[in-house]
Amino acid sequence: MDKHVEVIGIAAGVCTAMSMIPQIVKVIKEKKTEDISLFYLLVLLFGLGLWTYYGILKDDLPIIATNIFSMVLNLTMITLNMVYTKSKKN
Amino acid sequence: MDKHVEVIGIAAGVCTAMSMIPQIVKVIKEKKTEDISLFYLLVLLFGLGLWTYYGILKDDLPIIATNIFSMVLNLTMITLNMVYTKSKKN
Repeated sequence: MDKHVEVIGIAAGVCTAMSMIPQIVKVIKEKKTEDISLFYLLVLLFGLGLWTYYGILKDDLPIIATNIFSMVLNLTMITLNMVYTKSKKN
Repeated sequence: MDKHVEVIGIAAGVCTAMSMIPQIVKVIKEKKTEDISLFYLLVLLFGLGLWTYYGILKDDLPIIATNIFSMVLNLTMITLNMVYTKSKKN
């Protein structure tokens, strides 16, 4: 693959994956996730899984790498969402 | 492009783009965006722009179409975020 194109893809993936980090930091700091929809997180997780599969089918490394990283961050958010929702009920 | 692969890409894009819709609905209903970071939305917008550029460079229609759709939804969230933050100050 053209190196220039690959760099654009990796930069794109880093931004869309990194965009979840301030959200995670904010949730940990404030210990609440009231405004974050669990359904949104689950649909996003499914979509990221499909993007990873698409990347594998097209042999596209930037797509595979960034979507796996996004899935890890997304799973972190889902865990936090469940922990804070549970601790609120108690 | 292989039709099967294209369908996977479109399905992936629909899921990651659609995942913003429940979030938008929730913000409109509750008229508050306290837990949603503006910085997160701006980094995501930049990343989606780069993905669109990547799609153009690779001539990949599912990537172009779904990232443009995601950018529209993201801009809607940014607008709502600004409107509700402003109305709160008044």
